[in-house]
Amino acid sequence: MTAPVTLALTAGEPAGIGPELCLQLATEERAQRLVVIASRELLQARQALLGLSVELQPWQPGDQAVTAAGQLSVLDVAGISDTAAGVTSPGNSQYVLDTLTTAARGCLDGTFDGMVTAPVHKGVINEAGIAFSGHTEFLQELCGVERVVMMLATEELRVALVTTHLPLKDVPAAITPERITQVTRILDQDLKTYFGIRHPRILVAGLNPHAGEGGHLGREEIEVIEPTLEHLRQEGIQLTGPLPADTLFTPHWLDNADAVLAMYHDQGLPVLKFQGFGRAVNITLGLPIVRTSVDHGTALDLAGTGQADAGSLHTAIRVGEQMARYRRQHTPQAGEST
Amino acid sequence: MTAPVTLALTAGEPAGIGPELCLQLATEERAQRLVVIASRELLQARQALLGLSVELQPWQPGDQAVTAAGQLSVLDVAGISDTAAGVTSPGNSQYVLDTLTTAARGCLDGTFDGMVTAPVHKGVINEAGIAFSGHTEFLQELCGVERVVMMLATEELRVALVTTHLPLKDVPAAITPERITQVTRILDQDLKTYFGIRHPRILVAGLNPHAGEGGHLGREEIEVIEPTLEHLRQEGIQLTGPLPADTLFTPHWLDNADAVLAMYHDQGLPVLKFQGFGRAVNITLGLPIVRTSVDHGTALDLAGTGQADAGSLHTAIRVGEQMARYRRQHTPQAGEST
Repeated sequence: MTAPVTLALTAGEPAGIGPELCLQLATEERAQRLVVIASRELLQARQALLGLSVELQPWQPGDQAVTAAGQLSVLDVAGISDTAAGVTSPGNSQYVLDTLTTAARGCLDGTFDGMVTAPVHKGVINEAGIAFSGHTEFLQELCGVERVVMMLATEELRVALVTTHLPLKDVPAAITPERITQVTRILDQDLKTYFGIRHPRILVAGLNPHAGEGGHLGREEIEVIEPTLEHLRQEGIQLTGPLPADTLFTPHWLDNADAVLAMYHDQGLPVLKFQGFGRAVNITLGLPIVRTSVDHGTALDLAGTGQADAGSLHTAIRVGEQMARYRRQHTPQAGEST
Repeated sequence: MTAPVTLALTAGEPAGIGPELCLQLATEERAQRLVVIASRELLQARQALLGLSVELQPWQPGDQAVTAAGQLSVLDVAGISDTAAGVTSPGNSQYVLDTLTTAARGCLDGTFDGMVTAPVHKGVINEAGIAFSGHTEFLQELCGVERVVMMLATEELRVALVTTHLPLKDVPAAITPERITQVTRILDQDLKTYFGIRHPRILVAGLNPHAGEGGHLGREEIEVIEPTLEHLRQEGIQLTGPLPADTLFTPHWLDNADAVLAMYHDQGLPVLKFQGFGRAVNITLGLPIVRTSVDHGTALDLAGTGQADAGSLHTAIRVGEQMARYRRQHTPQAGEST
């Protein structure tokens, strides 16, 4: 446990608030060793714009990342074409993806203990002719895994999703035994591996209002969800549900649970973001690497103003470090002795 | 404004906690004039079970309802067959519906200024061979209105629903211009009439995650919701949206709004109940009468123990009285001078 955890931090969309959030972090001493993966030229331009004077220290594998106030370790990524704040440029898209690839490969080969991502802009990457549906899917493909799980977390609440970015009309058909099984196993395993929870207690929401009310408001609970949960219980996973979503998120249930599994995006995330807006972290489970992210977007309108709030990024870094430490205890990594 | 507001309070399912909540209220002095609509025999049996000594005063139209501690005005409804706590009896179903009819007719003819309902048990009424899908639908039919709106409210938050108790798979097709228009008009009008809000500001959620993200995650926002909201704005209704549900419920939006309109049950109610569990009130808008309700069920397991929490019933009564008062200011009623 004495070896420091080193996290890669990708600065995200160049026109957004990601680069300045990375610089803002560096104005104070950090508890975590961070290596910002970004264009050095971009960071210089953004700090000139904001009147900051952070010393950008070139970093290469084997170096100890700096933690002192006013200093920041940077792994320069080439290829940026435009460093302007507030206006996206499709010409930057390959550069943005290169920062992700650099960070993820560094995690896979043990150079980094995890990666934290500032927001990217899906639209502009697609405008550049590169199919991209988000960090999660990009990392899933890069790491070669069949299924990942999106989980948002605050200090008080963790919400994982069975389905994520699907039109609502496609949700019921996507709630299959296979998907529920894969997602639940990943959630259970990763709560052990990355959060140190020996016997995770998971609350599962129904798909329909009132969890179907005994079949009167939909039959997916009876036909799909309940039998699947029963199988998973026989594997030893502690599951409660399917519960009505509007009673699940109350102290009676939450006080005795480690995570909530919602069936779809708007069933779980409104509560999570209401409860912890600006303090939530987005975690990708099921990857062979640690990956956390802020819970906000690129905020192009705030970029270059210095007014963006680094609260969610601080949380993402802190949670990423905790996850990396728990994983070391659970399964010692090659990177531990470096 | 000097004439007192008189509310009818239906005691709900005889085997549930409704009767004892009514009795618990009466152990203290009330600010509101309440007439409990229930079997006198039931109330006597329940207070014997709990060791309470509330004086049950027979009430008839024209009487002033009592408010003193230890006294309760009761309008006796005949026909109960079983007064046991904790075990439902289909033979009581017609009696339960008679309490609702008595209260609602009393509201329609000006005897009462509004009605507050303790929970009923849908299942047992249907077991008795009477088709019944809930208070809301029963009152809608009794009052002869085409559309009502379910709204849950706490001190801090109001959430109304475009669709309510539908299987999730049926929700997208139910989000029609007609339904959105009817529901929004009722919500806007009733926020004025019953809550004294001169120019209601309503936040509208999208149907899909991220409100469809420009059509990438569903097209209902573009094809149905946005054009309908635009029409409604031209009628002078103040609408913001469609907004992503997971950003709508944050201070940036909520601080400048009077109500949220969610597209479906589990998009809106989990946040509301998380925020105000035990303090939420269920309000039926669009009726010609004031109707509020507790936000909990019959709690058969708690019935007869005296441990049920009257918090939500207190809120339902307080909100019902406020609504009746605002309506008087807005449209003077015949009942006002009684």
